[in-house]
Amino acid sequence: MIGLGDVYKVVATMFPLYVALVLGYGSVKWWRLFTPEQCDAINRFVAYFTLPLFIFEFTSHVDPFKMNYPFVAADAISKVIIVVVLAFWAKFSSKGSYCWSITGFSLSTLTNSLVVGVPIARGMYGQSAVDLVVQGSVIQAIVWLTILLLVLEIRRTQTDFYSSDETVGDSKAADNSVKDLEANSRALAETKPSFWSLVKRVWQKLAMNPNSYACTVGITWALIANRWHFQMPAIMEDSILIMSRAGTGTAMFSMGLFMALQEKIVACGTSLTIFGMVLRFIAGPAAMAIGSIAVGLHGDVLRVAIIQAAVPQSITSFIFAKEYGLHADVLSTAVIFGMIVALPVMVGYYAILEFLH
Amino acid sequence: MIGLGDVYKVVATMFPLYVALVLGYGSVKWWRLFTPEQCDAINRFVAYFTLPLFIFEFTSHVDPFKMNYPFVAADAISKVIIVVVLAFWAKFSSKGSYCWSITGFSLSTLTNSLVVGVPIARGMYGQSAVDLVVQGSVIQAIVWLTILLLVLEIRRTQTDFYSSDETVGDSKAADNSVKDLEANSRALAETKPSFWSLVKRVWQKLAMNPNSYACTVGITWALIANRWHFQMPAIMEDSILIMSRAGTGTAMFSMGLFMALQEKIVACGTSLTIFGMVLRFIAGPAAMAIGSIAVGLHGDVLRVAIIQAAVPQSITSFIFAKEYGLHADVLSTAVIFGMIVALPVMVGYYAILEFLH
Repeated sequence: MIGLGDVYKVVATMFPLYVALVLGYGSVKWWRLFTPEQCDAINRFVAYFTLPLFIFEFTSHVDPFKMNYPFVAADAISKVIIVVVLAFWAKFSSKGSYCWSITGFSLSTLTNSLVVGVPIARGMYGQSAVDLVVQGSVIQAIVWLTILLLVLEIRRTQTDFYSSDETVGDSKAADNSVKDLEANSRALAETKPSFWSLVKRVWQKLAMNPNSYACTVGITWALIANRWHFQMPAIMEDSILIMSRAGTGTAMFSMGLFMALQEKIVACGTSLTIFGMVLRFIAGPAAMAIGSIAVGLHGDVLRVAIIQAAVPQSITSFIFAKEYGLHADVLSTAVIFGMIVALPVMVGYYAILEFLH
Repeated sequence: MIGLGDVYKVVATMFPLYVALVLGYGSVKWWRLFTPEQCDAINRFVAYFTLPLFIFEFTSHVDPFKMNYPFVAADAISKVIIVVVLAFWAKFSSKGSYCWSITGFSLSTLTNSLVVGVPIARGMYGQSAVDLVVQGSVIQAIVWLTILLLVLEIRRTQTDFYSSDETVGDSKAADNSVKDLEANSRALAETKPSFWSLVKRVWQKLAMNPNSYACTVGITWALIANRWHFQMPAIMEDSILIMSRAGTGTAMFSMGLFMALQEKIVACGTSLTIFGMVLRFIAGPAAMAIGSIAVGLHGDVLRVAIIQAAVPQSITSFIFAKEYGLHADVLSTAVIFGMIVALPVMVGYYAILEFLH
């Protein structure tokens, strides 16, 4: 049975996030405090200062030599399951496509782990759960976001081939599918030798992204500090905390601004919204449950693994989608609508997971 | 003797504040991340959201029935001493003026107690010192800023009389001092009946000011909560904390933006800068020392009383000065330059106060 106490616990954990979100939303929609250009300034303040320092603060406290390896393995298995399913779907289903596979991967695996996941995990299962979520977020940032960027860059190269082909070819009646096939194989052929130039571009993108930067510097610090057993001096820790403490609040506020600036909350139509929600809140956690059971997780670690896979959509995944022009509306809806429906979803998962052993 | 340990303690306490300040300054001056209009957005974000909630968070935790009354009395005595000295100066010195007395009062009594004073007090003397600083800040916000606003409104009324008089009078050779005297007495005569309209205007100003608002609501909450012995529910506390945690960092960042947007760090000339620094860092703490010794404070309470009187200039006092067009450049310099020199000043005071019993 779902107890009222359980419901209250989840609500108490998530309510403050919504307060910051609503303040951001209201400051544009109701109180007209900020113009769109001014919202941009606040988003930039968050993107360049509070959020990177917030990410650094968490990442630098991970002990890379004492990760929970079964948890990490379960996470990896769940991602591989999703990749395999999507690859099969793209290859063998008539509706399948490479582009939708990329978006499907984003939707089902990438979560807003630090801003939303950490407070939820702390409220539900305490500090040890936070440690797990942070470990997951480090791997997401370093492994999975990098792979996503690489795949998006490959797609862009192919698209460039398509478009240059379209510019050259002027017989509009030509068989398009033949042309596509041709361009495709040509792209594949030319992609391989230019793989390292792709890697270089991805690397440059990551080096320019303050979040990746923060995560990489943080984990590097953690490696060095834990290898030679020293701690960050209090003066440095406090200097980071003064801005990183603002992380959760300003990030949610900034998401509220983003929501207010959209013409519609649901930008991509009902069926795509449902598609996104199913991938995010059902497929993702289901894959994680399979991975977790495969490696024999149990107790709170199992619960945290599944809950953290059901956290709302990563904002970074939307930013990438926008940058590469790939289903940005679907991901924007997943971020916004996902955050709105997250409360009942989390209450549901929390109640169901009580039955697990 | 000043030990190196003492110096480090003060530096460790204040360094994070400067980090946030320099990030704000650098984001405009060096990295050109924000246009002036965008800086305005960040300032507004701080002024309407993080800072009021930060003030509320502190104020609502004061126990108004258990204030440290000797400390409060010492604070009141120090302010009265300053008012009396300035009034004498205005009346009997050839250089004295009503306007400069107002600015002198701002400079010598009003501090940035919550943003700068609280971390300093915590670093130096622990949580009990923070409680004292917060009590002082509540009284500053409710009593002294209100009086300052009232005095500024009275002055504006008089200035209006002057200017209307100047518009009417067209004999430019007329004896100005006679005209001044006339206008002055006329203003005084008409000011008395309109006293309540002044109070009303001050009240409206305060009700529009998010900081006053936050302080009043906070202390009202504290009165009710302590009278009927109940605590804020965790869900409400967390909802405030999510934004209020950002208070110190964003306020210092915003001060950095303000510094970067000024044409010069010292806007008002060297002698006025020294005048401001002497009032802020010597006259204010000296008056507080007299008040404290008069009521018999000793030990850490005495030290905190003096240290908190030497905290850099209140930003609100600059905002009022700008709004009423009264020596805004002097107060801007006091805020900016005061923050820059605060570190050695605090180290000095901390070292000297070690000798007190």
